[in-house]
This record gives sequence, structure tokens and C-alpha cells, in this order.
Amino acid sequence: MYEELKKRVYEANLKLVEHRLVILTFGNVSEIDREKGVLAIKPSGLNYERMKPEDMVVVDLEGKVVEGRWKPSSDTPTHLYLYRSFPGLQGIAHAHSAYATAYAQAQTEIPCLGTTHADFAPGPVPVTRLLSKEEVSADYELNTGKVIVERFSSLDPLQYPACLVAGHGPFAWGNSARAAVENLLILEHLAKMAFLTRLINPKAGELNSYLIKKHFERKHGPKAYYGQGKEK
Amino acid sequence: MYEELKKRVYEANLKLVEHRLVILTFGNVSEIDREKGVLAIKPSGLNYERMKPEDMVVVDLEGKVVEGRWKPSSDTPTHLYLYRSFPGLQGIAHAHSAYATAYAQAQTEIPCLGTTHADFAPGPVPVTRLLSKEEVSADYELNTGKVIVERFSSLDPLQYPACLVAGHGPFAWGNSARAAVENLLILEHLAKMAFLTRLINPKAGELNSYLIKKHFERKHGPKAYYGQGKEK
Amino acid sequence: MYEELKKRVYEANLKLVEHRLVILTFGNVSEIDREKGVLAIKPSGLNYERMKPEDMVVVDLEGKVVEGRWKPSSDTPTHLYLYRSFPGLQGIAHAHSAYATAYAQAQTEIPCLGTTHADFAPGPVPVTRLLSKEEVSADYELNTGKVIVERFSSLDPLQYPACLVAGHGPFAWGNSARAAVENLLILEHLAKMAFLTRLINPKAGELNSYLIKKHFERKHGPKAYYGQGKEK
Amino acid sequence: MYEELKKRVYEANLKLVEHRLVILTFGNVSEIDREKGVLAIKPSGLNYERMKPEDMVVVDLEGKVVEGRWKPSSDTPTHLYLYRSFPGLQGIAHAHSAYATAYAQAQTEIPCLGTTHADFAPGPVPVTRLLSKEEVSADYELNTGKVIVERFSSLDPLQYPACLVAGHGPFAWGNSARAAVENLLILEHLAKMAFLTRLINPKAGELNSYLIKKHFERKHGPKAYYGQGKEK
Repeated sequence: MYEELKKRVYEANLKLVEHRLVILTFGNVSEIDREKGVLAIKPSGLNYERMKPEDMVVVDLEGKVVEGRWKPSSDTPTHLYLYRSFPGLQGIAHAHSAYATAYAQAQTEIPCLGTTHADFAPGPVPVTRLLSKEEVSADYELNTGKVIVERFSSLDPLQYPACLVAGHGPFAWGNSARAAVENLLILEHLAKMAFLTRLINPKAGELNSYLIKKHFERKHGPKAYYGQGKEK
Repeated sequence: MYEELKKRVYEANLKLVEHRLVILTFGNVSEIDREKGVLAIKPSGLNYERMKPEDMVVVDLEGKVVEGRWKPSSDTPTHLYLYRSFPGLQGIAHAHSAYATAYAQAQTEIPCLGTTHADFAPGPVPVTRLLSKEEVSADYELNTGKVIVERFSSLDPLQYPACLVAGHGPFAWGNSARAAVENLLILEHLAKMAFLTRLINPKAGELNSYLIKKHFERKHGPKAYYGQGKEK
Repeated sequence: MYEELKKRVYEANLKLVEHRLVILTFGNVSEIDREKGVLAIKPSGLNYERMKPEDMVVVDLEGKVVEGRWKPSSDTPTHLYLYRSFPGLQGIAHAHSAYATAYAQAQTEIPCLGTTHADFAPGPVPVTRLLSKEEVSADYELNTGKVIVERFSSLDPLQYPACLVAGHGPFAWGNSARAAVENLLILEHLAKMAFLTRLINPKAGELNSYLIKKHFERKHGPKAYYGQGKEK
Repeated sequence: MYEELKKRVYEANLKLVEHRLVILTFGNVSEIDREKGVLAIKPSGLNYERMKPEDMVVVDLEGKVVEGRWKPSSDTPTHLYLYRSFPGLQGIAHAHSAYATAYAQAQTEIPCLGTTHADFAPGPVPVTRLLSKEEVSADYELNTGKVIVERFSSLDPLQYPACLVAGHGPFAWGNSARAAVENLLILEHLAKMAFLTRLINPKAGELNSYLIKKHFERKHGPKAYYGQGKEK
């Protein structure tokens, strides 16, 4: 019944492997069908090599399994909370890729040091606060979603397609499972370049606001002129 | 007679290459069959490309060759000592992968800086002391096993699936040859992320103990809820 | 009508992927046919995997599309300005490869620390100034070309086959689209080695001028004796 | 007439690409047949992808082409001088691999920080002095060989299978073209691990002499017990 949705989620999960964003069973990708009120997500701890499209788990917005024989990813409550809080998202991707996770572990936002970053987001990639002992002991994955949303109180998730969870790793999103994975890939590349830049020149400053604005608006919003319009 | 055991060990050794944990003939993986009192291990110095399952060497618990036409890995006495001392292990993997070996060379434990690490072990990956001149001159490989076991006097090898041997490199283990290799792969990823984290922020601290506990118990022990239970 | 030109540009763009100089749709390569007064370039935002030779866009020297159903790369005005200003160039390549872009973000030229660099250029790879607010707000891509040309007021683009645009990334060129990509690949390798060298020894100095001259002239100009002459 | 020799040299050159030790046409490998008084080497500047075994150039010990339609590598005089000075060598490999070249550019020897290094050589990998202006202006490639030999005045090239040429890059050797490439690969791995180790712990010291001796003699010389003896 959800063949197309499961296929897209399956393929996006395999892209995590292809782009070398994950090792073993680490990471997970989901996509929501807001009309039908369901999302498809990778099963928990399943090996990417042996996975098939029909192994994807379909859950409703309360997290109840609607279709599939496996347990969904243990991070499902985080995905659900983000979809509920950010109505513009259709896909979410999570991984423990080396550079983005290192920034999350360093509890340091990724500074916007160049136009590659400005093409992605109009400022630093934010990092959440650490969860408290109480937030960890009960509903941990739900609370992971909550600290992301808290961090975005004055940020637009459609402008900032990713967040670092302190001490944990990156979550990225987009208008499909595939777009979420692509944003995770860009994020990893930005994190690596920020890391290298600051080792070359520890005083390397953030890009000028007018250059950030120019590049961001070149790719996003009504004045965008990068790409082929809708078709891509 | 030991076809299945040799096949599993052969495949696990090839995984070292696939995961880029070794160059040339470096590294070795073994698995023990505790009922039959034998273990299979990679032959010494043999090229991975030309190796076949039947090239694996089967030795008894004193290290005598039971089956196979090659000399076993020169590290066999280390493996044997670990299997004898740690009854819970079924597989052991050793390599000279870049980041984990660099921590071993720096004689620095790998700090637990994030949840990826806490999923693996509930604290820093330990490093042994250096062997003395006497320990090196006779029974060197046996004594390599002994310093690992000495380092684990107050650590549980089923909770900490790896150890760095000072000035040498990592050993990892698990409930099969394949699991041991997977733990070595995770270890290398953790070492790389710890390295990057401390270059981004030299003061980046260890993860809070409650978050370490949460993540470790999410994946291990009676309260685990990651994965599909037994099936994986 | 421009089959051969489009095929060469297509293949050079795919080389960006093969050499891991780009992710996703980032980067673009062009080649000019100076007799016919046209250049072929990658379409804007198109995926490398799905691209075919006939997708390349042919534009005249004012940037008007002469052949092709897509919009040309948004960086086309930069390419055009460089071709007009540097008559010796036949191919231009642009990417956001990690090390070269990090130097551009650090607004630091790539110092000539060894003979691999001297084989490429007889001195540091230059970096432009940042564009002003005015230069960004109108004709941004044209002005990107202009700051490169400004930076080359006392440099010969046939001797220095690349430039870093401050806060943005590298442009490289050569006597064909393929040669431009090869120069971008060499540039990335030089940037990585300069980065490593200065971390090993922060005081590592530039190569002696006589060794730079020797290596550069070994590969370029009338006294060159590297390679097979014209055939290569 | 020299089919076998050319085939071995061809295959060893391709290994440089497979092990990612070179980009484009960089690097070269040779093997000598001391009985026939000839060596086969890669042609200068030829692309690895298009190369065939018959493209290898055979030269005599004065460097005169005996067989082949291409010019030999411009580094041929360096190879010849090393073969003449070090009678134990049968193969030589040269590349501009990132980490080893960075040490050469930093004019810093690669310290022996662990047993992986001690398996390779019983001490630091040496670096030459810089060539003088006179040595560069005439017979540059010959003089490159001479500074290597000068650096080995008190070192045994059969114990130390590699040397860094200051400001240039690594040369490695062995008892065949293939062994030379394998030593270059190990060297690159050692350089990377030394780099990482010193960033983790800037005070990380050299390995104890007794552990160096143990590991070196485990793999080399009459007391060696690593590997399968002659067969490997």
C-alpha cells in the first residue's frame, strides 16, 4: 500500500552508504506522507547490505507500526516530533558522519566561512544544548526532538536544513528523504571545510553578511536563479 | 572438518580489507570454537587477495596447528591468551588502522566524547602500559596478551570490546570473528571523531555519565531496545 | 553542430566526480571554441549521474544560449570574463573541493613548499580580495571574474593555472576542459600537502627560487624535458 | 626480449594508482635486471590509464634506451644512481603521496613512533639535505640520487627501504618493483600515523630501542619469524 514511499525511503537510506556517511547499521532516514498521516523509516539496527524496500517500517504519527515486520529505528520519536513541529519538512536524515559529529561533540556550531555554506544556510549550523538527566532518563528520543525545536525558536527550519545535537550528531531535513540525505552530505562537507579552514587560519572570520545573503538567495526563495527552476 | 569456522574467519579477514582497516598483509582475525577447543586464524604474512577459506589455520588452545598448511599469524599467542582469560569472547581482530593506532602510539586512551562512543563502551577505550625489555625479549606475543588482561583488571571485556596496546595498535573482540571486525571498524571511527573533536575544541569534555549510561544500556544488556532483539 | 565540443565538456565534468572534486551538482567545467566564438558549459544544478553529452549548453561570448535546452551554469559570466581577458585559455574548471576551498575560505594563498607545486606554478597559488557589497549586489558572477583578473595584473595565467576566490573556492584553467580539471585535481593535492606540511612544521619555508625555477621549466616552456613532447 | 621485466614494472606502476599513491601521471617505478645490465621504467608523463606493458622503456646502466618507443621517466638518472650505489636493490618507486611528501616538504624525518614503523625500518625514515643551486642547475636528477646516497653514508639501504628527498618527496625500494611499491605504501601509512600521533600528543616519544629491535628482527634477517619464509 505504501510501496512508493517505502521505495523512496529505502533508496535514500542506501545513499547514506554510497556517500560514506555511515558505517554498519548507524544512521536512519525517513519520509512522511502528510496526507495519509504516516511515515516510512529504516528498521532499527538492520544491515544496509541485506535491507530491501519492503523492510522499511511504516508508522503513524503516534509511532504505531502500520505496516512492516520490524521494529522502527529507535530514533523514530525524534523524527516524529520534528515532523509535528516543523510542518514544512517531508524527509529527515540522521548519521554519525565524522566531521559533523565532531562539531556536535565539540558543542561548537559550524561557522559560515564561505559561499558553499551560504548556499546551504544563511548562517552557522546551530548546535543544541545538552539534555538534562531528567530528559535522558525518560522519553530520551522524544526529548532529542524537543531540544532541536527549542534551538530553532528563532530560526526557520526551511532556511536552516540541519541541526547538531550536542554530544550526539547531526540531523538534516528537506522536502523528501533524498533531499534530507543530500543536505546531510553537504553538511558533512561544510564541517570538513570549516575544520580545515580554522586549522589553516585560526582567525578566519565568518563570511560578510551581504555575501551570505547573495548566495543563499541565489539558490533559495523567489529570487533564486541557480538550477533549472522546478526541474532539477 | 572445520569448514564453517574457517569460512567465517576467512570472510571476517576480508572485511578488514573492505573496511580499509588494513594495507597489504597487516592485521589478522580469529574465531574460537570453545566446544571443540580450537580456533581458526589468518596465516602469517599471506596476501588477502590470494587467500582462500582453506588457507585459514586451525590451532588448538596451546597453539599447535591442527589443520592447515601455513604457519598461523605471529600474533596467535596474543589471541590465545585473550581467549583463555576472557571466556566471553568468540572472535578477535587486530589491525594497524590509522587513527586507533595513532592513539596507541600517543599512549593516550580514546576519550568518550559522544553518544556514538557510548553506544560502543561505557567509558574511554583503555590503553595498556608499554612492555618491559624482559617482556619483549621472550614470549613477546604472549606478553602482549598479558598486558591487555592486566589493563582489564577492573574492566569487563564484554562491556569494553577493545584495547589499545601502547606503541603498537588496537585489538577488538566480540561474539564472532565478524563482530570483532565490526568493533574494530567502530573503534577506528570513534578514534577519528575524538581526534577531530579535540582539534575543534581542545577543551571538549567527556560526555555526562548519565548520557553514557543511557546510550550504552540502549544497545547492551537486559534493558536494550536498539535493534531487533536476537535477529539483526 | 557542436557535438565534439559538448562531448569533451561532458567528459571533463564527469572527471570532477571521478576525482572526487565535487559532491552532488557542485562545480562546473567549460571549454571554448575561439574560432566559432562559442563555449560549452555544464547546465545549472543538473545531476552528474543523469547528465548526457547533449545536455551541455552552448553559449556565445555574450552568454546567449546558442544550443541546448537547459540554463547554463550560473557561473557562466565568470567563465566568459576569464576567456575574454586571458586569450590563452581553452578550458576552465570550478569546484568546491575541500582543501583548496579551505584555503580560499582562510583567504590564504597556497605557499609553494615543494617540487610538486613548482611543477604546477612558479610561486604561491594566488587568492583574490573579497568582493565589495556593490560588486556582489549586481553582476556578481561577472565581478567574480573581474577580481580574478585584477589579482593577475602582474601574473601570467599561462604560468599560474589557478586562482582562489576569497571566501568562495578555486578556479583552474588550461588548454582544454580536461586540462582544466587536471589542474584543479593537482591544486587540491597541493593544498592538502601544504596543509599537512605546515601542521608538521609551522615554520616550513617556501622552496628555494632556483629549485622552483628548475622544476617549473622542466615541465613548461622551451626547455621542458618532462613528458613526450607534444604527444602525452 | 624483456617481456617479463616490462610486465612486472607495468603492473607495479599500476599498483601506485590502485593504492592511491599517485594522481595523473605523477610517480614512477622501475626494476633492474642486474645480469642483463638493464632496467625497465615508466615512460615520462604517460597516462596510467592508457599505458600498456609494451610502453615500458628499457635502458642500460648509462641510461641509453635499449628497447621502447618512449622517453623514459625524467627521474631515470636518480634510479640509475641508486641502483649503482646500492647493489642490493632490485626495484625503486617514487611518488608524491600526500603524507610522505608533506614530511619531505617539512624537511622532517618520520619518527619511529610504533611497532608498525619498526616492522619497516629500525629507526626514523631519513630526509636528505636540500640540493645546492649548482646541484640543481646541472645533472639535477643525478644529484638527487647523490644526496640520497650521501644521507645513507651510515645507514644500510637494505634496512631502511625509503628516503625522503627534502622539498621533493619519497623514494622507496625493495627486491622487486612490486616490493618497492609496497614499501612506498607502508611509508605513506607510517607518515600519516606519525602525523596523527603528534597532533594527539605533541610529546609522543620514539619507541624504545628494544621494541624497535624486536619488531624489526621479527620481520627481517636470520631470526625473522613473521610470514611463511620464502613463500609469501
